[in-house]
Amino acid sequence: MPDNDLSGGDVVLVTAALVVSLAALVFAWSLVRAVLATDQGTTRMRDIARAVQEGAGAYLRRQFRTLAVFAVVVFLLLLVLPVSEGGWGTRLARAVFFLVGALFSAAVGFIGMTLATRGNVRVAAAAQSGGYRPSFRIAYRTGGVCGMITVGLGLFGASLALLLFDETAPVVLEGFAFGGALLAMFMRVGGGIFTKAADVGADLVGKVEAGIPEDDPRNAATIADNVGDNVGDCAGMAADLFESYAVTLVAALILGQVFFGADGMVFPIVVAGIGVLASVVGILASNPGKNDSSGLAPINRGFFTSAVVSLVLVVVAAFTVLPGVADVPDSVVNPQVLGFVSVLIGIVLAAAIQQLTGYFTETSRKPVRDIGRSSLTGAATVVLSGISLGLESAVYAALLIGGAVYGAFLVGGGAALYAVALAGCGLLTTAGVIVSMDTFGPVSDNAQGIAEMSGDIDEDGARVLTDLDAVGNTTKAITKGIAIATAVLAAAALFGSYNEQVRTALGDVDLAQSFSLVEPDNVVGAIIGAAVVFLFSGLAISAVSRAAGRVVFEVREQFRTRPGIMDYSERPDYSAVVDICTKDSLRELATPGLLAVLAPVAVGFGLGFGPLAAYLVGAIATGTLMAVFLANSGGAWDNAKKMVEDGEYGGKGSEAHAATVIGDTVGDPFKDTAGPAINPLLKVMNLVALLIAPAVVTLSVGEDANTTVRLLIAAAAALVVIGAVIVSKRRSVVVGGASEEPADTLTSSAT
Amino acid sequence: MPDNDLSGGDVVLVTAALVVSLAALVFAWSLVRAVLATDQGTTRMRDIARAVQEGAGAYLRRQFRTLAVFAVVVFLLLLVLPVSEGGWGTRLARAVFFLVGALFSAAVGFIGMTLATRGNVRVAAAAQSGGYRPSFRIAYRTGGVCGMITVGLGLFGASLALLLFDETAPVVLEGFAFGGALLAMFMRVGGGIFTKAADVGADLVGKVEAGIPEDDPRNAATIADNVGDNVGDCAGMAADLFESYAVTLVAALILGQVFFGADGMVFPIVVAGIGVLASVVGILASNPGKNDSSGLAPINRGFFTSAVVSLVLVVVAAFTVLPGVADVPDSVVNPQVLGFVSVLIGIVLAAAIQQLTGYFTETSRKPVRDIGRSSLTGAATVVLSGISLGLESAVYAALLIGGAVYGAFLVGGGAALYAVALAGCGLLTTAGVIVSMDTFGPVSDNAQGIAEMSGDIDEDGARVLTDLDAVGNTTKAITKGIAIATAVLAAAALFGSYNEQVRTALGDVDLAQSFSLVEPDNVVGAIIGAAVVFLFSGLAISAVSRAAGRVVFEVREQFRTRPGIMDYSERPDYSAVVDICTKDSLRELATPGLLAVLAPVAVGFGLGFGPLAAYLVGAIATGTLMAVFLANSGGAWDNAKKMVEDGEYGGKGSEAHAATVIGDTVGDPFKDTAGPAINPLLKVMNLVALLIAPAVVTLSVGEDANTTVRLLIAAAAALVVIGAVIVSKRRSVVVGGASEEPADTLTSSAT
Repeated sequence: MPDNDLSGGDVVLVTAALVVSLAALVFAWSLVRAVLATDQGTTRMRDIARAVQEGAGAYLRRQFRTLAVFAVVVFLLLLVLPVSEGGWGTRLARAVFFLVGALFSAAVGFIGMTLATRGNVRVAAAAQSGGYRPSFRIAYRTGGVCGMITVGLGLFGASLALLLFDETAPVVLEGFAFGGALLAMFMRVGGGIFTKAADVGADLVGKVEAGIPEDDPRNAATIADNVGDNVGDCAGMAADLFESYAVTLVAALILGQVFFGADGMVFPIVVAGIGVLASVVGILASNPGKNDSSGLAPINRGFFTSAVVSLVLVVVAAFTVLPGVADVPDSVVNPQVLGFVSVLIGIVLAAAIQQLTGYFTETSRKPVRDIGRSSLTGAATVVLSGISLGLESAVYAALLIGGAVYGAFLVGGGAALYAVALAGCGLLTTAGVIVSMDTFGPVSDNAQGIAEMSGDIDEDGARVLTDLDAVGNTTKAITKGIAIATAVLAAAALFGSYNEQVRTALGDVDLAQSFSLVEPDNVVGAIIGAAVVFLFSGLAISAVSRAAGRVVFEVREQFRTRPGIMDYSERPDYSAVVDICTKDSLRELATPGLLAVLAPVAVGFGLGFGPLAAYLVGAIATGTLMAVFLANSGGAWDNAKKMVEDGEYGGKGSEAHAATVIGDTVGDPFKDTAGPAINPLLKVMNLVALLIAPAVVTLSVGEDANTTVRLLIAAAAALVVIGAVIVSKRRSVVVGGASEEPADTLTSSAT
Repeated sequence: MPDNDLSGGDVVLVTAALVVSLAALVFAWSLVRAVLATDQGTTRMRDIARAVQEGAGAYLRRQFRTLAVFAVVVFLLLLVLPVSEGGWGTRLARAVFFLVGALFSAAVGFIGMTLATRGNVRVAAAAQSGGYRPSFRIAYRTGGVCGMITVGLGLFGASLALLLFDETAPVVLEGFAFGGALLAMFMRVGGGIFTKAADVGADLVGKVEAGIPEDDPRNAATIADNVGDNVGDCAGMAADLFESYAVTLVAALILGQVFFGADGMVFPIVVAGIGVLASVVGILASNPGKNDSSGLAPINRGFFTSAVVSLVLVVVAAFTVLPGVADVPDSVVNPQVLGFVSVLIGIVLAAAIQQLTGYFTETSRKPVRDIGRSSLTGAATVVLSGISLGLESAVYAALLIGGAVYGAFLVGGGAALYAVALAGCGLLTTAGVIVSMDTFGPVSDNAQGIAEMSGDIDEDGARVLTDLDAVGNTTKAITKGIAIATAVLAAAALFGSYNEQVRTALGDVDLAQSFSLVEPDNVVGAIIGAAVVFLFSGLAISAVSRAAGRVVFEVREQFRTRPGIMDYSERPDYSAVVDICTKDSLRELATPGLLAVLAPVAVGFGLGFGPLAAYLVGAIATGTLMAVFLANSGGAWDNAKKMVEDGEYGGKGSEAHAATVIGDTVGDPFKDTAGPAINPLLKVMNLVALLIAPAVVTLSVGEDANTTVRLLIAAAAALVVIGAVIVSKRRSVVVGGASEEPADTLTSSAT
């Protein structure tokens, strides 16, 4: 049995990590000051920016108020659920750290978004007054704040828990990870619905019906559209990566403790600390230089610099922290090599996914060019070619991720699951840079929107902002791919932790029999797991359709009741649309949210811990593919539209352009709502499984087994999910619907 | 150990089944004579019908020539592959029965299609001369031929093998099932590409570019479109259900022998025999009566009559054939109850799937009405609402199928896998009626096409044919749902047989460890399994896009070089388009076909028999959902278009109509190419796994283990698949492409 108590040297290392995490927050603060010190542009630009700030702030505050109630409920449930190790003190600490995780996740989203809604107008102003390089620098630094807070708070929570709770830290951190994941999922889903309801609604009623261009101030949905970029792409993505970060660390700590005791817990913390340092270097290396061939060059420089720095330092850490020998069965290499190679696999995977996503979504490459060309025969062929591209590209991404897991398995031997978790840590050493790259997208997108709406930017300034926006589109697509890989490795590592949890709860029995695929109930578990991914995606897409429908009605109504809008003599009521998006996205996120939390409860208590394991595997396998499919189809359609807008096949206004606009609109909820929300879905479901595992085992086997209670819990969970789905179906306004017709509920007819 | 030799009573029962199978063929022959005896209509109608007959015949002959080479290669490979039981004689018998299975599958497709291309014109003629009821009767009887040959040949092969080979029959029948499945997959994929290339191409160039209606004789692609209905919906579907039938029977025999010896093998044969009798009764009960409320009424009467007849006879059979007690561990009921309840589960599942599919795809129900309404805001919202509908409906279907498997698991106890196979047999007792219902679709579709092209039908006749076509559309959608359920149960049962095969090859070792989800390599296997479903779907959809592109070029070229076509003074060259579709679909089916056969080989030999099991489960879980998603989205779009054409939201020619036409075109390759092809994909992959299992085990463990040979085989298989994918990517004509540009291969850029 490895030694589980932290040695004196371990305490020094973890304390150092804690200090590094605080340093990251200080660095973030210095970036905030640098960004806020720059010029805010003209009065009109400030006005527009203020409207976006207010809308975004109002949305998040309202969301947090709603979620606070939910958080308290979960807090109480966590006090009731048994823990695998430790007593009431550990239970309480886990519940408290759940709140801390939720709070941190919310803070990452809130701070990142608040700065993004202040950085955007400054980017626009700098484009006018200073040109490309200052403008780029402000946008990237705004992203950098988000990135540093993400990694800073994640590392802070994990190292603090390890110092405070020593060997029970993994259990306490389950709460931390779950809090982060739950908040992130709601922010991803809610923000995703908000942003695309506003975007799709604005496009349908503006471009299609009224014939006015994008970001036209006469369209009442434009401010909501800009707000959406921030609450979706910025707050949602940052919270998502924060939780991947926290979740992966937690999984690595749990599995590290199992195989290598305290050393196994300290190593991932050290790797994360290295990641923070590497991210700072990466962000500083991303300043645009004179010799850069394109806008992507400094961003790639930042990413690869941070990857190389991590790599070098991880080698040192592996040979310092990890033991040279260990009694892990079937281990093919010593723990030091295992640690180093696993982290290396993760870093390489990040780079590979970056290349792959780029190939499938960049305008200059064959896949997107093929879609663009298919616009000559109309929208149907654009949609079909985008879907087949997405399906195929998902396969290559899944094979890369599967290859990484298999590589970790080969190198890990008996400690394979720890190796998988370490590969996840490796993938996340560049997390700070990745979040910065991603936030760069909505900030420059917003900057262009504000410039367009204000009309205060000259041609040179506008060109700078168009260039920045194009770079931002590519970084958004790339970081989406990496975020998915992160989520899958985190989920796979968590799945390993679930196995350990069940094993411990069963009293170190061999799990093989109950987790075997020879059992038909496990095959059913896998089918249900895959089904939940499909249902979740379908619900997210239809939620966007419904909410967009209400936006269309509102804007139409404003055009009708305020005839002065079209000749600029009357101002549209922007806040009414923001309000609709806010209310609707908060209402619509309930069903997918409940599904994610309760489906594993229903399967675990209803069918048992074996089918629950198969359920998780089914969800991971299908979720990986579905997430990449949705993200890459959407990204490719977006760029195919840009390609036609840049003048190919007839340019703007041609039939080919109309066809690609349809493709892009289909892709909107794919790439920005359903696709990214699958990441937190996978992690939330694995965490729920991890948390309920001891209770499921207790009720299933041994002297406390109680089939009635077990099935009652499962039935209650299933009924709530079914009820939520029925309620969401009853909201029957579909885009284009002229009136609500009495809902014909699914259950009454389909069964 | 149960007794594996057939008793005297068993021989009598199996011989009776053999006689019943021959009776089914005789009944089919009587239906053929009845259909061919009816009037063939006017000369123009005969001419058009002849062109369709020739095109369809030419396609199938060419396909069979190509596949004959492939069949010989597989025949030789089967001689090399070790068998789990028996010696060289069994190997040879298995290989010979592979050829028999392939031949039967081809015969079912060929005969069914040949009659369909003769029935169609007679249906059109009867609509003109006799009205609705005679016309309906001819269409349904044409389908009945197909149905009776399907069940007749399936039962004939299985019972013959059981009589000839007694206890080694299951091994021999692996060959029979594989032959049927392989041919069916190629016919499904090839026919699916043919039919949708012609349909999409005809629509794009006719409706969209030239502005002429569907089935207009000036469109050079119309004959190909009609040929496509026959080679896809008719030949493909019949072969698919034939192989489901054969595969399910084989799996039930294998598993029945394991648990109950000879009795366990005889019972499924008897159930199949009952199914044949029930199908005859069902077909005879489907005559339209005076009191029928709709065209669907007689069809539903046939289905439910046959279900009830089966149910009653199966009760008798269970208590006669199966033993009253058995020494199966954990068995909760006696074998008789197990047999009866399992079959009942299958029959109930068929009815439930029928209702569910109807709910999601019928014009009168809320889901399709919602899609229709979304056409008011354009094509993007039509596509989005169809996709979310498809995703959600797939979940309910998967839960029904999963529920059936779980029910069989609960009732089966230690013999759970046998119960799953028997549920599959139950589902297939109505197979004869299901194939009849399905073939009804293309026959009435074709009848309408021939009538329209000939111009020889008056208004009353045309209305009859429109009504028949609408009924056919619904039956096609419903049978697709049942075909998927059939395929999943067959695949699940085969998966059980794979487990037994591995267990036997390992020498009755407990499989739990190597099949456990605790092993990360098994998780990777599941991811790859899910990925293959995505890749296969993507390849099928892009194959249709490419082939449709060539059709568009050809028809455009004909309009250009033969200016007389538009004013009817010149005849288009129909055969040129048929030729393009034939060549392209045969070329395009190679990549998905190789993927299906070789991916399990690569995974099995490369990663081992545990990951191969997880691979199969991943493929089954994802495949179930993907198949239903694609089928139901496509079906719903099709009917949403019809709803608008019937006058809602502006009717034909409105913008809403244009939006639904785009949705329908997107749905074409979903519902008729990629979706249905997933059925044989799942079964082929499971059969390949079953066939290679002994070889994989031999090379992996024990004294003959040879890692080098094992990995070489895997590498060769993987390389062939990668090569095939690259070759298909190089065929870079995308619909709408003005010229071929040099292909930028995936591998050179993505890695």
